Amino acid sequence: MSGRLIRDLILPRLDRGKLGALPDSVVLSDLGDKIAFTTDSFVVSPIFFPGGNIGSLSVHGTCNDLTCSGARPIFLSVGLILEEGFPIEELSDILDSMSEAADLCGVEIVTGDTKVTPKGAADRIFINTAGIGRVETAIELSPSRIVPGDAVIVSGPVGNHGMAVMLSRAEFSFDFDVKSDSASVWPIVERLLSLEDGLRFLRDPTRGGLSATLNEIANLTNLTVSVDETAIPVAPEVAAAAEILGINPLEAANEGKIVAVIDRDCVNKALDLLRDCPQAAGASFIGTITPERKPRVIIKTRIGGSRILAEPSGELLPRIC
Amino acid sequence: MSGRLIRDLILPRLDRGKLGALPDSVVLSDLGDKIAFTTDSFVVSPIFFPGGNIGSLSVHGTCNDLTCSGARPIFLSVGLILEEGFPIEELSDILDSMSEAADLCGVEIVTGDTKVTPKGAADRIFINTAGIGRVETAIELSPSRIVPGDAVIVSGPVGNHGMAVMLSRAEFSFDFDVKSDSASVWPIVERLLSLEDGLRFLRDPTRGGLSATLNEIANLTNLTVSVDETAIPVAPEVAAAAEILGINPLEAANEGKIVAVIDRDCVNKALDLLRDCPQAAGASFIGTITPERKPRVIIKTRIGGSRILAEPSGELLPRIC
Repeated sequence: MSGRLIRDLILPRLDRGKLGALPDSVVLSDLGDKIAFTTDSFVVSPIFFPGGNIGSLSVHGTCNDLTCSGARPIFLSVGLILEEGFPIEELSDILDSMSEAADLCGVEIVTGDTKVTPKGAADRIFINTAGIGRVETAIELSPSRIVPGDAVIVSGPVGNHGMAVMLSRAEFSFDFDVKSDSASVWPIVERLLSLEDGLRFLRDPTRGGLSATLNEIANLTNLTVSVDETAIPVAPEVAAAAEILGINPLEAANEGKIVAVIDRDCVNKALDLLRDCPQAAGASFIGTITPERKPRVIIKTRIGGSRILAEPSGELLPRIC
Repeated sequence: MSGRLIRDLILPRLDRGKLGALPDSVVLSDLGDKIAFTTDSFVVSPIFFPGGNIGSLSVHGTCNDLTCSGARPIFLSVGLILEEGFPIEELSDILDSMSEAADLCGVEIVTGDTKVTPKGAADRIFINTAGIGRVETAIELSPSRIVPGDAVIVSGPVGNHGMAVMLSRAEFSFDFDVKSDSASVWPIVERLLSLEDGLRFLRDPTRGGLSATLNEIANLTNLTVSVDETAIPVAPEVAAAAEILGINPLEAANEGKIVAVIDRDCVNKALDLLRDCPQAAGASFIGTITPERKPRVIIKTRIGGSRILAEPSGELLPRIC
């Protein structure tokens, strides 16, 4: 059954006749001296949400991890775990989304594996993608290159993915029209790479949102990060939904945003570089790395005060990606 | 919770302080011109079985897929999907096995991801591994290089893994002492690569066992494969268990064997090369590729007749790997 499923449904969608079959193992050449390698499993629930589904998310998520290493995403592997009886129509839609997302990201799905588990052993569908990218910068993007005075920018409004998934789980009928931002961030990073030495560190603020990423930067550098709440872009519909659900939008996951730490002198150039990049609409300079040797994040609030933006804790948003 | 789990339990075991942390994405260099890339998800049940567990299996399985491309396994990624409440002691044992297997295989686990799903959403633990290998042969190991007259060899007794897993599921108390053969086949293939042009094609006979692999070769070449039942090594305890369970040992999965198609003139040299390789104890010349243009497998039986060895069908052994 699994063999037929792969032959008739999965291969035509993911491989589109290019290889005739997704091989167990594939030989790749001309990747250059330095490659990036990453993996992510996706267990999001529900599997379809406004702005995407588990298939497109699994392509974007892994591409974005590669991108954070300064690598252009090139190849993906796909590992599907399916629950017996999972509807073929939904699987087709998910595979079509993966294929479409791969095309948009410029990556090729080159190898794969499918396991079918008995009913009840897995909740519908889980997808693992691993990715290989070509490192396109001589700079090592590392927290060790961050120095006091550096600036923090975010590529656009935050909280959309997490809020879209939470809203699609909610029982009530408000219609907030919040869409996941699931997308590849490579077009953004490709531009930022021209900052060369001015670019220090990149992270995609997924689980735990902007707050988790800022705290990670503080912990990795052992420095206080100071951000300005009014500078952090949040879409009005996300802010409204966050209020109703009692969720901090800064703690909600993003799947198409990038947080970049850059030389303070490069801020204007960076925002200029991103101005004509549709993926980075709403990019904003949100804060700085202070010289204070305390690993924490201080947020200057809208009303003029300041407080610590704590690391999101607990099972805030299980199965958000 | 997931963050603490990764920091305190997973990283110390898989990373062993080498990187300080398994990064989301890792930059790798000096892999050479040609790499192999593969992925596999492991959903085996039970997760512990004689001769291994889901952890060691997930390392060997992916190493072996790389090996079949003529590539020395070098780097692995690990994606864990854990059910909430999965016992920490079992997770520790599994991670220790992965780490030990990785050492034995000479591979490094360089990047990883952990997802925890709510109780009931996943059955205990699923593991995905993706792998990168360095291709160490100029020969393209491809079914297109197989010609009539070529020989088929298998690296040792077949059916152990599938039988060990089936026996650990069985309710009865016979003690057959069947162990999974879960292991890396790279030491075997490294020797066979010295056959150069004489080596045509490699496959590890996992799901569906030797029978599935022989049928795959017949289908890929569109030729009849003829094998000799008396030449196919099966351990006595595997044969006995197979008889009781009513399973054909040729259809039972292997996780440490290789099927190689080679030039007929290389058979003696190949068996010589494997003679001092402990991983290939019991290697045997089992059959030939005939000139007959019918994609099927004919087996000459012990009692002198011959019959078609059909492709294993149906859900023969779900969750065997």
